[in-house]
Amino acid sequence: MKRDKISNAVIRRLPRYCRHLAALRREGVERISSSALGDKMGLTASQIRQDLSCFGEFGQQGYGYNVGTLYQEIREILHLNQQKEGILIGVGNLGRALLRNFRFADSGIHLAAAFDVAPECIGTEVNGVEVLDAAGLANYLDDHDISVAVLTLPARFAEETGRLLIEHGIRGIWNFTSVDFEAGEDHADVVVESLHFSDSLRVLSYLIGAF
Amino acid sequence: MKRDKISNAVIRRLPRYCRHLAALRREGVERISSSALGDKMGLTASQIRQDLSCFGEFGQQGYGYNVGTLYQEIREILHLNQQKEGILIGVGNLGRALLRNFRFADSGIHLAAAFDVAPECIGTEVNGVEVLDAAGLANYLDDHDISVAVLTLPARFAEETGRLLIEHGIRGIWNFTSVDFEAGEDHADVVVESLHFSDSLRVLSYLIGAF
Repeated sequence: MKRDKISNAVIRRLPRYCRHLAALRREGVERISSSALGDKMGLTASQIRQDLSCFGEFGQQGYGYNVGTLYQEIREILHLNQQKEGILIGVGNLGRALLRNFRFADSGIHLAAAFDVAPECIGTEVNGVEVLDAAGLANYLDDHDISVAVLTLPARFAEETGRLLIEHGIRGIWNFTSVDFEAGEDHADVVVESLHFSDSLRVLSYLIGAF
Repeated sequence: MKRDKISNAVIRRLPRYCRHLAALRREGVERISSSALGDKMGLTASQIRQDLSCFGEFGQQGYGYNVGTLYQEIREILHLNQQKEGILIGVGNLGRALLRNFRFADSGIHLAAAFDVAPECIGTEVNGVEVLDAAGLANYLDDHDISVAVLTLPARFAEETGRLLIEHGIRGIWNFTSVDFEAGEDHADVVVESLHFSDSLRVLSYLIGAF
C-alpha cells in the first residue's frame, strides 16, 4: 500500500465511504455493487473501484462489495480501530459543544483532558473530561502519550500553542481556529488538519450565486 | 465567466485566496508575484495563474498581482459583498458558539433570526439575534426573504427541517449535522454545503498513520 501516492481527493472521500457504509449496515444491506454505492455517494462505479483499488482488493466481480467487510476495512485504513489519546485546548463555546456532542470515540480518539486559562473553568468537568490549567500543558504532554490536539482557542493564541504542541510531541492538530499554520520543516511529520468554517460558508455563497 | 465549468477544487481554493490576500493586506503588502503567493499557499505559480484564469484576467506579467485589487475581485467572485439574509436553526452548544463567535458578516451573511424548540430558549437573544419558536419557521420563511439557513440542530431533525426549508424557498443550507442530504431533483438549484466534523478528524487519523 503506497500511501504517499494517494491523492488528497481520494483520502478525503474515505470518511464518506465510512459514513455511507455505516448507514447501509444500519439498514441491513449486506452487499452492494459499485454502481449502487456510487449512486448513493454521487460518484461513478468506476471512481469507486479506482478509489478502493488504491488500498487493495475489495469486492468481487458480479457480487459487489460485502458491506460489513468493506466498512471494517475502511475503518482499518483510517486507523479508526486504534485508539489514540487526545486533548482539547480552549473550553469556550465551540470547545464545550465538541466536548458535549461530538463522538470522538467514533473517530478513534479518547479525550484524556481539556485545557483552558479561565480560573472558573479550570478544575471543572465537561461530559466526563476534566479541564486543566493551560499553564501546565507542556508538562502534561511530556508526562502523557498524547497524539492529537483539538484547537478551539481564540485565533490569536493558535500559532504559539501549536508550536508548543509540536515541540512536545503532538502528532496531529485538529485546528478549528481561523489561523493557517504549518508544523514547519523540522516537524514535517506533524499533521495539521484545519476546519475553516468561513471557507465553507464562502463556497456556499459562491455556489448560490448572485441574485 | 463559465462558472459551470469550474472544478470543485478551484472553487474550494477561492476562500483560501481570500484569507491569504487579507493577511497580506493587513501586513501592508501591496503586490505579490504568483510564485510568492504560491509559496504562502502551498501551490505552484502555475496553479495560481490557472486558478485565477478561470475568472478573468488578473495581474500583469513582470508586476504580479495588486493585493488589494485581487482581494476585492475574489470577494466579488464569491459574492461576499452582496449581503444575504440568513437564519440559524438549533441554538444548542454549537449554534450558540456560532452566534457568539463566528463572523457571519465577513462572509456576506446577516443573521436575521435563530430558531429553536426549547421554551427556555425561545424569546431570548444571543449576540443580538432573537431566538424564535421553530414552530413558526415555515411562516417566517414565507414572510421574509431568507437565502441561507445554518443547520445546527440534532441530526434526527435534519432531513425533515431541510425539506421544509427547501419547500419554503431557501437557496443554500449550511449543514453542520452529520446527515448527508440533497435538495432533490425538483430543487436542483438549492445548494447544501456540509461541514462534517468527523470526516475531517478521520482524515487526520489517516494522515497520522498507524503507530
